[in-house]
Amino acid sequence: MNREFTHFDKQGNAIMVDVSEKENTKRMAIARGTIYVGEETLEAVLQEKVQKGDVLGVARVAGIMAVKNTATMIPMCHGLQITGASIDFEINRDTYSITTLCTVRVNGQTGVEMEALTGVSVALLTIYDMCKAITKDMTISGIMLVEKTGGKSDYIGKDLIEEEVREKERAKELEKKKAEQIKGIFQGEKR
Amino acid sequence: MNREFTHFDKQGNAIMVDVSEKENTKRMAIARGTIYVGEETLEAVLQEKVQKGDVLGVARVAGIMAVKNTATMIPMCHGLQITGASIDFEINRDTYSITTLCTVRVNGQTGVEMEALTGVSVALLTIYDMCKAITKDMTISGIMLVEKTGGKSDYIGKDLIEEEVREKERAKELEKKKAEQIKGIFQGEKR
Amino acid sequence: MNREFTHFDKQGNAIMVDVSEKENTKRMAIARGTIYVGEETLEAVLQEKVQKGDVLGVARVAGIMAVKNTATMIPMCHGLQITGASIDFEINRDTYSITTLCTVRVNGQTGVEMEALTGVSVALLTIYDMCKAITKDMTISGIMLVEKTGGKSDYIGKDLIEEEVREKERAKELEKKKAEQIKGIFQGEKR
Amino acid sequence: MNREFTHFDKQGNAIMVDVSEKENTKRMAIARGTIYVGEETLEAVLQEKVQKGDVLGVARVAGIMAVKNTATMIPMCHGLQITGASIDFEINRDTYSITTLCTVRVNGQTGVEMEALTGVSVALLTIYDMCKAITKDMTISGIMLVEKTGGKSDYIGKDLIEEEVREKERAKELEKKKAEQIKGIFQGEKR
Amino acid sequence: MNREFTHFDKQGNAIMVDVSEKENTKRMAIARGTIYVGEETLEAVLQEKVQKGDVLGVARVAGIMAVKNTATMIPMCHGLQITGASIDFEINRDTYSITTLCTVRVNGQTGVEMEALTGVSVALLTIYDMCKAITKDMTISGIMLVEKTGGKSDYIGKDLIEEEVREKERAKELEKKKAEQIKGIFQGEKR
Amino acid sequence: MNREFTHFDKQGNAIMVDVSEKENTKRMAIARGTIYVGEETLEAVLQEKVQKGDVLGVARVAGIMAVKNTATMIPMCHGLQITGASIDFEINRDTYSITTLCTVRVNGQTGVEMEALTGVSVALLTIYDMCKAITKDMTISGIMLVEKTGGKSDYIGKDLIEEEVREKERAKELEKKKAEQIKGIFQGEKR
Repeated sequence: MNREFTHFDKQGNAIMVDVSEKENTKRMAIARGTIYVGEETLEAVLQEKVQKGDVLGVARVAGIMAVKNTATMIPMCHGLQITGASIDFEINRDTYSITTLCTVRVNGQTGVEMEALTGVSVALLTIYDMCKAITKDMTISGIMLVEKTGGKSDYIGKDLIEEEVREKERAKELEKKKAEQIKGIFQGEKR
Repeated sequence: MNREFTHFDKQGNAIMVDVSEKENTKRMAIARGTIYVGEETLEAVLQEKVQKGDVLGVARVAGIMAVKNTATMIPMCHGLQITGASIDFEINRDTYSITTLCTVRVNGQTGVEMEALTGVSVALLTIYDMCKAITKDMTISGIMLVEKTGGKSDYIGKDLIEEEVREKERAKELEKKKAEQIKGIFQGEKR
Repeated sequence: MNREFTHFDKQGNAIMVDVSEKENTKRMAIARGTIYVGEETLEAVLQEKVQKGDVLGVARVAGIMAVKNTATMIPMCHGLQITGASIDFEINRDTYSITTLCTVRVNGQTGVEMEALTGVSVALLTIYDMCKAITKDMTISGIMLVEKTGGKSDYIGKDLIEEEVREKERAKELEKKKAEQIKGIFQGEKR
Repeated sequence: MNREFTHFDKQGNAIMVDVSEKENTKRMAIARGTIYVGEETLEAVLQEKVQKGDVLGVARVAGIMAVKNTATMIPMCHGLQITGASIDFEINRDTYSITTLCTVRVNGQTGVEMEALTGVSVALLTIYDMCKAITKDMTISGIMLVEKTGGKSDYIGKDLIEEEVREKERAKELEKKKAEQIKGIFQGEKR
Repeated sequence: MNREFTHFDKQGNAIMVDVSEKENTKRMAIARGTIYVGEETLEAVLQEKVQKGDVLGVARVAGIMAVKNTATMIPMCHGLQITGASIDFEINRDTYSITTLCTVRVNGQTGVEMEALTGVSVALLTIYDMCKAITKDMTISGIMLVEKTGGKSDYIGKDLIEEEVREKERAKELEKKKAEQIKGIFQGEKR
Repeated sequence: MNREFTHFDKQGNAIMVDVSEKENTKRMAIARGTIYVGEETLEAVLQEKVQKGDVLGVARVAGIMAVKNTATMIPMCHGLQITGASIDFEINRDTYSITTLCTVRVNGQTGVEMEALTGVSVALLTIYDMCKAITKDMTISGIMLVEKTGGKSDYIGKDLIEEEVREKERAKELEKKKAEQIKGIFQGEKR
């Protein structure tokens, strides 16, 4: 097997890989990730939305802007002229969590996996930021590449359904534990 | 209970909360998160390190720079003059994963939770970027606040040991499934 | 009268003025500006809002992020740790326009006039961007400082009521002319 | 008529529009805007220029740099490789104002209207910043698209001459009022 | 002797040093550096200046903006609220070179050496950029710290006069060689 | 001879040159520069490297990130989608200095000289930053373009060998002087 790091030169030093000879092709990537916020916070997010406030609206803008700034954050990542980006949210009422999906498109010489993953991450961090006055007992999990097309080879993500089942079980357990902890340790926590 | 969103005004519009009246105090926050990279990739990361290449070195720099840029990424987050930041890595050989810890310090009017969480996220994304030529079957999980001190109240993180046990079990299962999948779906995947 | 440029040294070269000796005081600034979008576009913005889309929500986020980035845009402007920022919108149905107000707070050695003006400008430009698929016949006008407090002297804005009356008259005339022009010149314009 | 928002998806969520299928064409846009600074300040700007100082030189640099950073400010705006940008100034001695024109060129899949408008806005804000030690009674007005070529359709701006006449009348009135106000309200204003 | 790296922790990993316990004091730093541009280019820069163009004016703006962005460029450098910055130029007609001085002030917990050095470097790179259509035979040399005050200890730079004499001799030799080379190798070079 | 400034228009105002009509070609540039750090610091850098710390690793990342951000620093420089970038270091044990080389590649309408020079400059500044706790008696010199290919004409750098000999002699002298100075002036310097 000859898969190996491309971000290092022969001497093992970090480089930004030369892609000059690669073709400009249409490429697309979708990434996802989930933030477990707990019942109280999810309720607040949703009610706020019904009214006027818009946690998810702010997170969407943050995610799309992050897509465009990926190369200024990830050192060896090539800068690209993104041709399209969108962020979608799924509310998971049973696990009190919000799943974020980010889709990115480009006509370029490298793929947009990092852009999609960065868009997801920053959108989730923004949700955390906007909810942290309610609780800090939030966890961001399951950030991964769902699909990519274009370039040398396509990629189809792992069995997401199985994954999701496990995530939900895990999240429920987590919530149960949090509930107990909140009674205990965090009783004094107000801010 | 009177915990409520502070990132929205009375009408529910997003704002950057006024902290003018808050005291400047010494504050600290630690966040963590884990990337599950699989056996082959972990081996490559570690060997590379023994030689000269340095996935973790690049990720550390990216994480620390992200700490300083947090307010340009997270829309309602206050800009702060960070007084100290560090990134630590733990290699988990049994789950083929790398855990990242980010510690941030400030003398300021708001906390540095978001800075620590952003530092962790960008360091993990950088590991993904530098390893994605070997595999794209990587998942980032368990990004959360470990501890914060200073400000209105301290925060002590959830029972991390229990959490970790569960993460490990989960990661093992995941690896097993990936191994099967790699034989199947991804046989054609080279890049 | 001895008011003079402070952004130039004795030889007339641009400098970033030395404020080392100034006191840290609580300062606040409010700026405003208006975008004339026309009837059709205003209707679209408002309906969209009733549903789910959110031109003003995106513009608000853009404005607040711009407040924090002011010193990277305006060459001789001091960087400041903003302690609070908000963006408000007023819909002017008679002039088919949207007025943006930006309020910024700081504890610092210089004022936040530029931050408030920049927040207004970028919020208005974002409205333009999000509506330009409907029409490009939009004008941004009346960007000015409404009020500032703190520092050497407070500032109370010009007679805003008189100003507004004139703006409205002007806007009406403009709309009338646009209507005629649209029939004529822009008949071919579709994108 | 089927003109509609393109920055929102079917559900009304903000997106960065997919332009992958659009042709790369040569595109150009010119935008303009005016800052009314008053007699005293205009005199100072001009004299300074005759000597060595250079308000307009600094504003020009700020405007051109802003053109290149447009996509990091305007959330749904595509990043582009600008192929040319320039900023021109017209001194209007009768209205004590400075008009800024920004021309931007690109070979790309989307137009550069936002880049030209952003360049104008930041150049005008920079003039404000550099003159605000003399007076804060300045207004930025008439920011609009003058012309665009390339892409689906060209655009020819509104009747600029009529517009200008009205602007001048308006500015004169404004100045008169300011003069009176300065005697009154702002007598104490020094900074 | 116990001087040692402070940018690494006990394990030798790069960190952003914790300065939380340091006093906020008034600090100042001056750095300098020189670009050797050759006779033809220096003449062009100076004539242009007499007219209207302004290589040095653009370089000054670039340098001051870079001072404010230092912490986003230099990974382990603390972000600071700069209280003042200026750039000065000295024309050296005998060595056909331009010396840049950058002075930076802060009230902070760390010094501004890096800010001053970065301001100098970016101003010099900007001169290079603006002159490179005339010649690419330019060298940037002698970037160093001239003076720093505030903090644990002051620093007085090396004997600058001796240094300068040597620089001049060296520059003359360099020019002589360049002249010969230009006849030879670069005869075909036009752009 | 008709070489002249291209960064100014006919009136001598700074512009970002229009390159719309230029061909997209494969272009490459290599730049270099040297930091003289002295014996004690070079020893520390090298030992650290043998162990775990990594001054040069951090400088490499900083340099590559700077390559991508060149157009946000250098006002009239075109933004480009860099296709490859690397930083190499040479340790000069006889002159106690570190030479940095930066290679940049692009398929574009303008060259990448500025990107390579900026990458070198920021990598050298980063070395300065990470060593300045040991000594501040460091000088950055000899930043220049080594080679460029693609575009209207290739460029082959000056006789680097001769240059280097002179640099070395100069550096030795400098070191000698520094040694004496350190005994004298800097005896009190600790930080």
